[in-house]
Amino acid sequence: MLIINIGNGKGKTTAAMGQAVRALGHGMKVCIIQLFKGKDFYGEQKILKKLKNLDFYSFSPKHPYLFKSISKSAVEKDCQKALDLLKNMLKSRKHDLIVLDEFNIALRDGFIKLKDLLELFNKYSSKINIIITGRAAPKALIRAADLVTEMKEMKHPYNSGKKFQKGIEF
Amino acid sequence: MLIINIGNGKGKTTAAMGQAVRALGHGMKVCIIQLFKGKDFYGEQKILKKLKNLDFYSFSPKHPYLFKSISKSAVEKDCQKALDLLKNMLKSRKHDLIVLDEFNIALRDGFIKLKDLLELFNKYSSKINIIITGRAAPKALIRAADLVTEMKEMKHPYNSGKKFQKGIEF
Repeated sequence: MLIINIGNGKGKTTAAMGQAVRALGHGMKVCIIQLFKGKDFYGEQKILKKLKNLDFYSFSPKHPYLFKSISKSAVEKDCQKALDLLKNMLKSRKHDLIVLDEFNIALRDGFIKLKDLLELFNKYSSKINIIITGRAAPKALIRAADLVTEMKEMKHPYNSGKKFQKGIEF
Repeated sequence: MLIINIGNGKGKTTAAMGQAVRALGHGMKVCIIQLFKGKDFYGEQKILKKLKNLDFYSFSPKHPYLFKSISKSAVEKDCQKALDLLKNMLKSRKHDLIVLDEFNIALRDGFIKLKDLLELFNKYSSKINIIITGRAAPKALIRAADLVTEMKEMKHPYNSGKKFQKGIEF
């Protein structure tokens, strides 16, 4: 099953992580591949890495939009490594659930080709549950998906000038 | 901060659980109080209960909508116990984050009074982060909240006749 979490609201990544914890609770095997998420910056990284039956990988911790000194070609190279790892993980059939955190962003910015991902999903998503997160997804990915949820911002403290808060936003 | 996850889509509870894991990763103390969620039925219950710095409570595991033999007065009594526990937890100031899973449902069905909850939130939510989940929330609760996300169903396999899936829906 191919599951996609999109939208401008909070909860795309945390829902995927909560989903990973849910699957682990049933004795399932889970793989998380994150892009653009910093190293030990997000609280969940520290906890999840210690859990049994969970393989946790992180690539391209910095996105060039926020870190202007990062070259796009280095990011593309790192995203390709993430894609290669995904291929190997899918082939191994070791996992019941694979979370591809922020892969929608890599698709949007051209670091990963939609064609490459769709090929993998066509081959494997009937046997393995795959969750992809990131603000917006290409239409062809939405069409291919079984379950799509839009996390929609109704109200957010940024809008009243409050800052990002540790333990909530990261 | 008062955070609310509503909507007809997937991810309200899993996002709250992912949020709990995020906070734990920063060494924060977390309390989860669940309503109507069965006993050791949801995968996350098994994992989260074992984590350090997390207090996990569950009340009224059966909702009378699904379990017709359950009396409403018994459910109301159990929900009041959950509310009393919440009061004590808030007073103790022991936690940085308190998750009130499906409390919106208890409000909708009259098992908990909105007035009672709002009183607590007015008193404590400036110091403690509180997350409430459940399909729909009363307008007064939305007004009181700092951060509201609607999880909106865009596509769901139920609609093409597929069954609830272990590790995904529970």
